[in-house]
Amino acid sequence: MSFERHHLRTLEGYVPGIQPRLPAVKLNTNENPYPPSASVCSQLASLPADILRRYPDPLAQRFRAAAARLHNLTPDYVIATNGGDELLRLALTTYLDPRLPLGLLAPSYGLYSVLARIHDAPVAAVPLRPDWSLPADTAEQWNEVAAPLAIITNPHAPSGALFSGAELDGLARAFNGVLLIDEAYIDFVDPELGHQTSRLVRAYRNVLLLRTLSKAYSLAGIRLAYGLGAPDLVASMLSKTKDAYNVDAIAQLIGAAALDDTHAAAQTWEAVRTSRSRLARELTALGFECQPSQANFLLAAVPLGDRRLSAEAVYRALMTKNVYVRWFDEDRLRDKLRISIGTPDENAQLIHALRLIV
Amino acid sequence: MSFERHHLRTLEGYVPGIQPRLPAVKLNTNENPYPPSASVCSQLASLPADILRRYPDPLAQRFRAAAARLHNLTPDYVIATNGGDELLRLALTTYLDPRLPLGLLAPSYGLYSVLARIHDAPVAAVPLRPDWSLPADTAEQWNEVAAPLAIITNPHAPSGALFSGAELDGLARAFNGVLLIDEAYIDFVDPELGHQTSRLVRAYRNVLLLRTLSKAYSLAGIRLAYGLGAPDLVASMLSKTKDAYNVDAIAQLIGAAALDDTHAAAQTWEAVRTSRSRLARELTALGFECQPSQANFLLAAVPLGDRRLSAEAVYRALMTKNVYVRWFDEDRLRDKLRISIGTPDENAQLIHALRLIV
Repeated sequence: MSFERHHLRTLEGYVPGIQPRLPAVKLNTNENPYPPSASVCSQLASLPADILRRYPDPLAQRFRAAAARLHNLTPDYVIATNGGDELLRLALTTYLDPRLPLGLLAPSYGLYSVLARIHDAPVAAVPLRPDWSLPADTAEQWNEVAAPLAIITNPHAPSGALFSGAELDGLARAFNGVLLIDEAYIDFVDPELGHQTSRLVRAYRNVLLLRTLSKAYSLAGIRLAYGLGAPDLVASMLSKTKDAYNVDAIAQLIGAAALDDTHAAAQTWEAVRTSRSRLARELTALGFECQPSQANFLLAAVPLGDRRLSAEAVYRALMTKNVYVRWFDEDRLRDKLRISIGTPDENAQLIHALRLIV
Repeated sequence: MSFERHHLRTLEGYVPGIQPRLPAVKLNTNENPYPPSASVCSQLASLPADILRRYPDPLAQRFRAAAARLHNLTPDYVIATNGGDELLRLALTTYLDPRLPLGLLAPSYGLYSVLARIHDAPVAAVPLRPDWSLPADTAEQWNEVAAPLAIITNPHAPSGALFSGAELDGLARAFNGVLLIDEAYIDFVDPELGHQTSRLVRAYRNVLLLRTLSKAYSLAGIRLAYGLGAPDLVASMLSKTKDAYNVDAIAQLIGAAALDDTHAAAQTWEAVRTSRSRLARELTALGFECQPSQANFLLAAVPLGDRRLSAEAVYRALMTKNVYVRWFDEDRLRDKLRISIGTPDENAQLIHALRLIV
């Protein structure tokens, strides 16, 4: 006899990327290859004496004020969470009744459908078009099944495609439920595109933006993300459904220091963009077919070549050479690898290993 | 129009104790009055370079191994969580279907019933007897309403009463659901009582123990707790329902250092017990009626005295003197204050302030 709830019995949980024993060329979980800024490190080195012993601020006010300043909003538009995972989960808890469908795109970040399973909610997934663009009737398809909540990633994962501001306006306007836009990779978008989204939360009562410090600010270890949305939308999570002390005191301090010094982090984004172009060229030269990416990873179809290796075989062969990338056993992805952009040296090691394999 | 789920609309979220501007005599959230151990502080001062940038171990293996060693169990009996709040929530997510009742005692830690409301589950609360002891038919009352999960605090909060090992055996044996024993205050129990509970998780497949490092190890700021239970029970939360990276990397390292050095923390527990006895004597001398407490707080009924002040009035008067305790507007608690044990100096300031008030 099991005590587990019935709908959980057949669930297989979300499986994060492998955490190899370091040193390794670890290009499998989209971490930033560069360290956090000097101001973050100096904040860590000078923590106040009582920071461990005392409970943290349940409302993370100092951090939320920093996020509000960055986006030219007021703090009541902001909620701080224990990584992006928590905001995603809170959105289901707060806006989605069990048994009602969660709107998604296909393919999507695998965690979304696992969260739906845990919540006992079905998934209504709209397949992206062959070129990874958004079908014009996406909102209509979600509305047809009365989805109270939909989650998209933009730039999209794992393709790296960017949905435009006009497409997001269209979605927000047409969709009847809450639209959560997971912007985990937004800081790696080419600034020349002028892609700017915080205006959406002022314009639409049903839009939530998810920002994380894990990638852009090299802070995956401390678990810190935030949501932006209309004060009414945010208040339900902030004052009702989140755990009381959800974000630890060190993360609150370090996170505020990071957002107060975006200039340093922006230099890493630029370096990643430069490496992204170069790595895409090198992979293409090896016969891989790369999707144009606005994120800090590339989705690359493995060339058939003389040895006719599957993407899975290449993924496993890379591991034997201490190089870790991601392979998904899923439609449209089975023939591809998702490769995080590393330092120039790590990228060179990847290319060297691939030359020996394919 | 609100996007919030219907059952959340009338919910008032859990309200944590006030976080006053420090310095203040803060005796309202049961923090440890002494700093963490030297080994914890030295771990914090020598964090590995990549700890911020990399994702933490999703399974917190090093920390779970330390907890397993401490309790003479194997790591598969252990789950690490982002504070005790997370384990409590995960237990509802994993074992309790919405609309089925959550078994509680009355009174209880206020968060439990808020978690039930968020989960859309009713509460089946068994009132404690007038002397704060456990009714013999508690399990039967929960079984009668088919509660799949029950949560008790032991030592009990806010009374400080300790339910005996024999009573816990009786509950675990008789209750048909999962029994979560929240042991947030267990380390402050007088060691002469020989109260030892990790044997329960080996003996019963339905028992989960919640331990937190917030109080006993002076680590409220980092949000770290753990659950102990039979591997089957723990696995559902560990591999299915918890957030993927639920515990940050700094907390994992510091927490392991804390559990590897319980000797230092144990000195603070002994100091708190000594202060607890003294403070109880002093409060009694002022006319307060103190429950015997095995926790790091005292529940004290306010004397009527000449000025006939209510407990709420005393609570508010203390705040004006920069002394913070907790008052609950709840049956059986309305005439009492819950006072965390502080340093000898803080306790003296409290007594001094009370002398001026009552």
